[in-house]
Amino acid sequence: MHNFSSGPAILPKTVMQQAAAACIDLDDSGLSILEISHRSKAFTAVMEETEALLRELIGISDHHAVLFLSGGASSQFFMAPMNLLPANATACYIDTGVWSAKAIKEAQLFGNVEVLASSKAANYTYIPKQVEIPSDATYLHLTSNNTIYGTQYRSFPMTNVPIVCDMSSDILSYPIDIEQFGLIYAGAQKNMGPAGMTLVIVRKDLLGKTERAIPSMLDYRLHIANGSLYNTGPVFPIYVTMLTLRWLKGQGGVTEMQQRNQVKADLIYQEIDANPLFECPNATEDRSVMNAVFVAKNAAHEKPF
Amino acid sequence: MHNFSSGPAILPKTVMQQAAAACIDLDDSGLSILEISHRSKAFTAVMEETEALLRELIGISDHHAVLFLSGGASSQFFMAPMNLLPANATACYIDTGVWSAKAIKEAQLFGNVEVLASSKAANYTYIPKQVEIPSDATYLHLTSNNTIYGTQYRSFPMTNVPIVCDMSSDILSYPIDIEQFGLIYAGAQKNMGPAGMTLVIVRKDLLGKTERAIPSMLDYRLHIANGSLYNTGPVFPIYVTMLTLRWLKGQGGVTEMQQRNQVKADLIYQEIDANPLFECPNATEDRSVMNAVFVAKNAAHEKPF
Repeated sequence: MHNFSSGPAILPKTVMQQAAAACIDLDDSGLSILEISHRSKAFTAVMEETEALLRELIGISDHHAVLFLSGGASSQFFMAPMNLLPANATACYIDTGVWSAKAIKEAQLFGNVEVLASSKAANYTYIPKQVEIPSDATYLHLTSNNTIYGTQYRSFPMTNVPIVCDMSSDILSYPIDIEQFGLIYAGAQKNMGPAGMTLVIVRKDLLGKTERAIPSMLDYRLHIANGSLYNTGPVFPIYVTMLTLRWLKGQGGVTEMQQRNQVKADLIYQEIDANPLFECPNATEDRSVMNAVFVAKNAAHEKPF
Repeated sequence: MHNFSSGPAILPKTVMQQAAAACIDLDDSGLSILEISHRSKAFTAVMEETEALLRELIGISDHHAVLFLSGGASSQFFMAPMNLLPANATACYIDTGVWSAKAIKEAQLFGNVEVLASSKAANYTYIPKQVEIPSDATYLHLTSNNTIYGTQYRSFPMTNVPIVCDMSSDILSYPIDIEQFGLIYAGAQKNMGPAGMTLVIVRKDLLGKTERAIPSMLDYRLHIANGSLYNTGPVFPIYVTMLTLRWLKGQGGVTEMQQRNQVKADLIYQEIDANPLFECPNATEDRSVMNAVFVAKNAAHEKPF
């Protein structure tokens, strides 16, 4: 079965089978993962293993906290500036598609927002490069992979400004240097598990500087202090994420994923480039390894296709 | 298996079996519920059936919108005042336990909060009654059932002020008159499904009056306009909630649940009252039908028990 729809993506078959089994009985506990207490020993072990696997696979040091929050990446569009950006400071954004644009809109509620570059006028067919980043910016926000437009950062800007990055659609698909990032967020449903959980990796020393009154559930510091267990969290998505991470580690980790994805992408782009009817509209060096986009050369062929 | 832990509660066995099956293949779609698009026909049908069942079982008219939001009831502690309470207006709260107290704390970030009554000094062993409610209050906030203390509103105050009610632990366990309520919210994990989704039932004419800039994901109006599908929602908890609601309807609905719970509660309280070692500390008329609390008459017996 191939799923070309928007939103959630395909998970490994073994993960789905284990998730189904846990709906009936989690590891012979006699309880379903759907009804187990988030404060039980069994679930505490799930949380610890999930965090440990993420730290190992991505290479996350103690400078960064790892949080499993309810909801999707869209909530981080406002939680990131709410937690990081003082009202009189400036956050820089690069606009590479609809997700960046939504993030920019939400940030404007909290402080000054400077859009350093945008490829909107070219229908988002490239990633702006050689962008000058003001050294006094609180952070630089990027969307690493643009699902709708099929473009992707193949390397991140070199800057001392902490990067805040929406990695929802390409996290765990290539190695990163975590020290470049102030904050990484990613909805679970593309590369980790079912919808309903967002992974947040945040550099702890960047927090607590806004002097803003933040509701408890929106305050990263409160979730860090409570190990993501301030309230009942997204138990089932966290469990499935653990299963996916175990699978990913067994396959060889993010370097192996990067190689496999590159092989798949090369095959698809070769076919698109050779095909007389279709073309990829995007700059060659910015083509996404995660999702290849193609359009009919003759626009009249789009609808029938 | 009996689950006495905090947090999520037991679901009907048939619901768990159907949820497990859907992890492998949702209704012969060839896709798992964990990977299906939230914009697919199959999932749109799930959303529509879940809302229709809730409207039928609770008796919800067109005055109220029904939303399925990510996260737990704790997020509604701040979202309710953020969406309903203008900065210069007053919301009234009755403090009946730790959940009420948390709701009060979050509301104070948004407007004037008047705590009309509290049973805290009596260790929350009763529900304050005959409370005078100022007629110009924007809303009156109640926690209908207090899980930790074992008290429950057995009837709601008669007032023209819209009631905002946290029904996380007793929704769908008795009939209500929806017209009394401006807003009802309930985390799914007690009476409906797995953790990660909160049901919000809100009177539409109360919205849009705060003149506050609200982040998109926190604005009830945006979710109403998008039928809870502005972003990828908590797909799996919504699906399991639908299964539970089908089961609940098949059992006879909320009136039947009320009768069954009363029979169970009567048995437990009879035993507690007759037992020479234990007692229920709560006012007889406020004892929760959902969760009976008992303590040792001799405090020295608590630890060994």
